[in-house]
Amino acid sequence: MKVNHRLAEIRSFMDERNIVATVVANPDHQYYLSGFKAIMYSRPIIYLVDNDSTNLIVPALEEIHARNEANIDNVLVYYEHPEMAHEGTSPFQHLKLLLSKYAAGSKIGVDMDSTPAQQVDFIKSLGFEVVDLGEKIVEMRYVKDNEELKLMEEAGRISNLAVSTSLNACKEGITEIEMDAVGTKALFEETAKNHPDSTLDLFVMSPSGIKRTVMPHVFSNTRKLQSGDIIIHSRQVSLNGYRAELERTIILGELTDDQKRGFEAAKIAQQKAMEFIKPGVTAAEVDEVSRDVLKKEGFVEYANHRVGHGIGISAHEKPYLRFDNDLVLQEGMVFTIEPGIFIPGIGGFRHSDTLILTKSGNKLITEYPRELKDLTYN
Amino acid sequence: MKVNHRLAEIRSFMDERNIVATVVANPDHQYYLSGFKAIMYSRPIIYLVDNDSTNLIVPALEEIHARNEANIDNVLVYYEHPEMAHEGTSPFQHLKLLLSKYAAGSKIGVDMDSTPAQQVDFIKSLGFEVVDLGEKIVEMRYVKDNEELKLMEEAGRISNLAVSTSLNACKEGITEIEMDAVGTKALFEETAKNHPDSTLDLFVMSPSGIKRTVMPHVFSNTRKLQSGDIIIHSRQVSLNGYRAELERTIILGELTDDQKRGFEAAKIAQQKAMEFIKPGVTAAEVDEVSRDVLKKEGFVEYANHRVGHGIGISAHEKPYLRFDNDLVLQEGMVFTIEPGIFIPGIGGFRHSDTLILTKSGNKLITEYPRELKDLTYN
Repeated sequence: MKVNHRLAEIRSFMDERNIVATVVANPDHQYYLSGFKAIMYSRPIIYLVDNDSTNLIVPALEEIHARNEANIDNVLVYYEHPEMAHEGTSPFQHLKLLLSKYAAGSKIGVDMDSTPAQQVDFIKSLGFEVVDLGEKIVEMRYVKDNEELKLMEEAGRISNLAVSTSLNACKEGITEIEMDAVGTKALFEETAKNHPDSTLDLFVMSPSGIKRTVMPHVFSNTRKLQSGDIIIHSRQVSLNGYRAELERTIILGELTDDQKRGFEAAKIAQQKAMEFIKPGVTAAEVDEVSRDVLKKEGFVEYANHRVGHGIGISAHEKPYLRFDNDLVLQEGMVFTIEPGIFIPGIGGFRHSDTLILTKSGNKLITEYPRELKDLTYN
Repeated sequence: MKVNHRLAEIRSFMDERNIVATVVANPDHQYYLSGFKAIMYSRPIIYLVDNDSTNLIVPALEEIHARNEANIDNVLVYYEHPEMAHEGTSPFQHLKLLLSKYAAGSKIGVDMDSTPAQQVDFIKSLGFEVVDLGEKIVEMRYVKDNEELKLMEEAGRISNLAVSTSLNACKEGITEIEMDAVGTKALFEETAKNHPDSTLDLFVMSPSGIKRTVMPHVFSNTRKLQSGDIIIHSRQVSLNGYRAELERTIILGELTDDQKRGFEAAKIAQQKAMEFIKPGVTAAEVDEVSRDVLKKEGFVEYANHRVGHGIGISAHEKPYLRFDNDLVLQEGMVFTIEPGIFIPGIGGFRHSDTLILTKSGNKLITEYPRELKDLTYN
């Protein structure tokens, strides 16, 4: 991953504020700035950028991985075996060494929102002033570059395939997790064909029935689908670290009239927001367009979350399309659009798609029918 | 999940130290103390326990989920839609309110190792003294109770099934991620049969070939297996939040003599550590038993990580079986045993199993053959 333009931007930001170095703990920020992603973080990984160099402190078992994949000047290794203990057994030893070149009282940038308090206290204990620049890195990630957009478009394409495969497996007696598994298998096979040397990471859930669809975030479980069920099938696919999200509310059998009204309202709320969103409008306005539909249909009190969120390296990332966010949207931002209503005793209804803001509007990178007739199974 | 004995223990600890309340940000600690687990944490969830009550601050979309599943006295909800904004739009508003009942200068417990610096600063800004009790919660989680052990034993049983299914799919031309997917599907089907209303969470990876097996933690990718490959197939299954881990190094075709020596050394190092570990020995001694084998075989310089780690709610949790950890092990602790050697140009070799320390020794909860002849495919 090309990171030089990102480094230039953060260095210029640091320079203007006399920040001599920035220490990054958040794995997603680390990936953005270095192209390196670990799987486990029980052994801390710490990234440090200053005006001269980029540095990554890793445990020994990540050394080869980091040297192969990280776009980084220096890899510093700490050890958990006695033969190498003299080189350091804790990431903090290396961090202290790296920081020792700066004068006492210098400003060190950190991301206060995702860095553990202990790590920040450690930096302060060495005599430095800590400055929060987490929001700057978050904002740098708002607008995606071409390399990022290309990965996300492809993540969208394979999400479509996985979702359609799972939905076509919808039938009485299959469990939520089995429905997920069928799509996952298809996803793996497709990626294996077309993306040699790629990594996949994914999230999928399919809450079903009235009681579970009113909980928009639950792990799929072993509940068996029954006639009359609503199922909210949701999938995120990350291809080489970049994501797309696709979700459909589907029906096994037939809906009640109340449920039909809910389904249609959520569908139209999504459609209106997708038609509206483009560079120049604010995040809050997108939320409002969708909430206006739900208000008119009498469901707004059940719409208990924002209309969508930024997506990229993280499953959810800023900007959030939220009623209190007046940010003006820009070309190259990527959002999910997913107004949901969750009505106790009746059920939950939500479709989600991912789109890129283009110069004149937006471009969907996920696609699947949204009409009740196309989403009804028997 | 029964949590009263855990609450009694943490309250007694707080009482002895004049800590009036403890604020917990770590999702795994929250699950341990409340039985509640969310999927996404882009909207913060905050847990607070004091002498009188337990409290969970959640976003609106988790309200029903939390009321259904959390073993908690009070659920406090914050909103991201305008109709309910007057009830609070940020978890910090509720946190401030909860904390307002304590006298200025009171001691508030937090986990400094996993709480974001911003949250700790916020508590301090309200005039409280912050005390780090993260290590106490970590230590409470060392010894598992019967409810936890039962879940982990069952997680072990279904791990065995998933691993054996994936391994039996090993053949030329199949990709790493496809090999993973086959076992995942079997896992889902089995769980669907035997664990109605359960949740599954899983991690699986299968680095293959010489270059990739020397990186012990990489996402499976779309590399196709070739004759002569070493594959390290590793799986963790979490059943209702509790985990087991099983990993085998397998061979497609035939090993070189150097590779055979590596395979055998790692196998024996694991076997010796599994025979040795029991209540009363120290974590460091377990590591040493395994490293002694590798030293004798001439591979110790390639054994770049600890011999194992605690496992439970977290994929990796303390106690770590590490050369510098003199902790005396106790009955009811659960560990992975997984000495690994990763030799550039030759390949990586590691088996991992999960075991429970019993009164007189240990009990394996994962099981699959470990001999080269049983792990060779054509």
